[in-house]
Amino acid sequence: MSQQKKPAIATLAILWILCGANVTQAQDALPSWNDGAAKQAIVAFVTSTTTEGKADFVPPAERIATFDQDGTLWVEHPMYSFVMYALDRVHTVAKERPELAQVEPFKTVLSGDRAAMAKLTLPDLEKIIAVTYTGMTVEDFADELSRWLAEARDPRWKRPYTELTYQPMQELLKYLRDHGYKTYIVTGGGQDFVRVYSERVYGIPPEQVVGTAGETKFTYAANGKPELVKEPKLLLNDNGVGKPEGIQLVIGRRPRAAFGNSTGDQQMLEYATAGEGAQLAMLVLHDDAKREYAYGPATGLPDTKVGAFTQALYDEATAKSWTVVSMKNDWRKIFTFDE
Amino acid sequence: MSQQKKPAIATLAILWILCGANVTQAQDALPSWNDGAAKQAIVAFVTSTTTEGKADFVPPAERIATFDQDGTLWVEHPMYSFVMYALDRVHTVAKERPELAQVEPFKTVLSGDRAAMAKLTLPDLEKIIAVTYTGMTVEDFADELSRWLAEARDPRWKRPYTELTYQPMQELLKYLRDHGYKTYIVTGGGQDFVRVYSERVYGIPPEQVVGTAGETKFTYAANGKPELVKEPKLLLNDNGVGKPEGIQLVIGRRPRAAFGNSTGDQQMLEYATAGEGAQLAMLVLHDDAKREYAYGPATGLPDTKVGAFTQALYDEATAKSWTVVSMKNDWRKIFTFDE
Repeated sequence: MSQQKKPAIATLAILWILCGANVTQAQDALPSWNDGAAKQAIVAFVTSTTTEGKADFVPPAERIATFDQDGTLWVEHPMYSFVMYALDRVHTVAKERPELAQVEPFKTVLSGDRAAMAKLTLPDLEKIIAVTYTGMTVEDFADELSRWLAEARDPRWKRPYTELTYQPMQELLKYLRDHGYKTYIVTGGGQDFVRVYSERVYGIPPEQVVGTAGETKFTYAANGKPELVKEPKLLLNDNGVGKPEGIQLVIGRRPRAAFGNSTGDQQMLEYATAGEGAQLAMLVLHDDAKREYAYGPATGLPDTKVGAFTQALYDEATAKSWTVVSMKNDWRKIFTFDE
Repeated sequence: MSQQKKPAIATLAILWILCGANVTQAQDALPSWNDGAAKQAIVAFVTSTTTEGKADFVPPAERIATFDQDGTLWVEHPMYSFVMYALDRVHTVAKERPELAQVEPFKTVLSGDRAAMAKLTLPDLEKIIAVTYTGMTVEDFADELSRWLAEARDPRWKRPYTELTYQPMQELLKYLRDHGYKTYIVTGGGQDFVRVYSERVYGIPPEQVVGTAGETKFTYAANGKPELVKEPKLLLNDNGVGKPEGIQLVIGRRPRAAFGNSTGDQQMLEYATAGEGAQLAMLVLHDDAKREYAYGPATGLPDTKVGAFTQALYDEATAKSWTVVSMKNDWRKIFTFDE
């Protein structure tokens, strides 16, 4: 080997190391995702929309990604956490308002009869939420919820609900943000509920949470201090058609990427994919009874929730080339605490 | 002078230059502001809340500043621009719906009689806005408004409305952003109206505009494409008490700094200053008839707008040590195009 070739080889070696580092870095951004169509779709979308010069390049200001929460970012079984909170809080409210113990659906909740509670209807739950989420200032609501979140435990894993987020989705949120995407939660759950922990749990600030919201009323406390009191009047039902409507109200831009797991997310995904340029639409399929739960199409187990992953939604996803994420096959790891 | 002292003097000289540069930089951030109490209040607030180690330090995530638009960031006389747009658009809508020409208040608007139009009431204007701001998709609304903004001219300066922003406030927006503050517009005007130009004109993205908003309806066009259609149903009246309520809905945090110019901003400023730590509340007083307009307290000319700078608001500002900005005395320059 002549002396002359050494610098060229050194350069190649450096290039090789640098390229190797880049490849490793890209792979490492999503270590909990198994190699497959879902992971490939994510990486292809992010690469094509954030690499200058590519036809699908999206200016940073327009990089909006919206995520459903329940069943998409964290566990939604056996019941939505925002409903669990409402049911628990009925006991507190009933101490201040004993007359509630005599009327349904509060009577059933106070009985503690799990079988009867499982039969509560959507109007029942709405009544319960209207009573338990209102009548206090926004600060008092946040304080009380923070205490509950610190104490309440999921019945299966015996952990705080905020630990039951999906590690692959946490990586996806970060991967998108690292590429200039602004990540939003767009939830059918309570907007004020999710805002209390969204920054700590997902790195998503309160102003990037769109959710079902009641009115607040500006008023003055007895000491003259201005305050905002939560009112029992629905302002935004952020589910189904309400998701694109809520996105317009709070964000005012069409998302480039949208992630969900049920018919409650259908219109959000349809809206996100109706614009120009590259788009990413994903539905999380719960097909892992061992590590989490199995329900919905292709599992043989019906999805009995309010917002279900129906066969019709599965067919729409297939027809429109949306990505269906199999928790069983696409996720190497479900929770942060998994080995 | 001994040789030994030279390095020390050189160091001092460098320090002096560096310190001098810093002072110049801080001053240069607000060159259109005259030295005085208002400018001092701004610099003191930003310095104390963004310097680590200071008692009033505010973590970056909590740095929220909210700005009224009409009369605070740009000219609101002789009429709010979002109303000017509605009045102009009546002519377009009447071509599609000729029956409007027979009914008030549309008949008056179509007559072109300026004196009669000046007497339109708030309910009249609401009817006009309901008809002219709705019935189209959010994209079509934005397209049509963009064309109007390009063509319409302010009657006094003969310039596009978007050129009539106040240079000192543009500097203030940038100064706050350069120190980690997220700047929001919180306007009684139409949210969808302001979003069309906010990024270009103020560097504020659509998702940081809170404003009066109607409902949108998610639906499918004849070709099956999903779309959001603007409906004639008020969702958020973002004025007065509606401003803190809108802030809670869209931002979900209490602002640290709030800027306005009328009773429409009163509750926003009250809410912003009711929290813990350092706060900044400012009201722009229009007292410069020569360079802009004079109206409101201390000018001898009544403020006859819907949202007025009343004497009661002036007294509240004085009692609560809010800063009243005199356009005449505090602003060296009003518009970018001023010499």
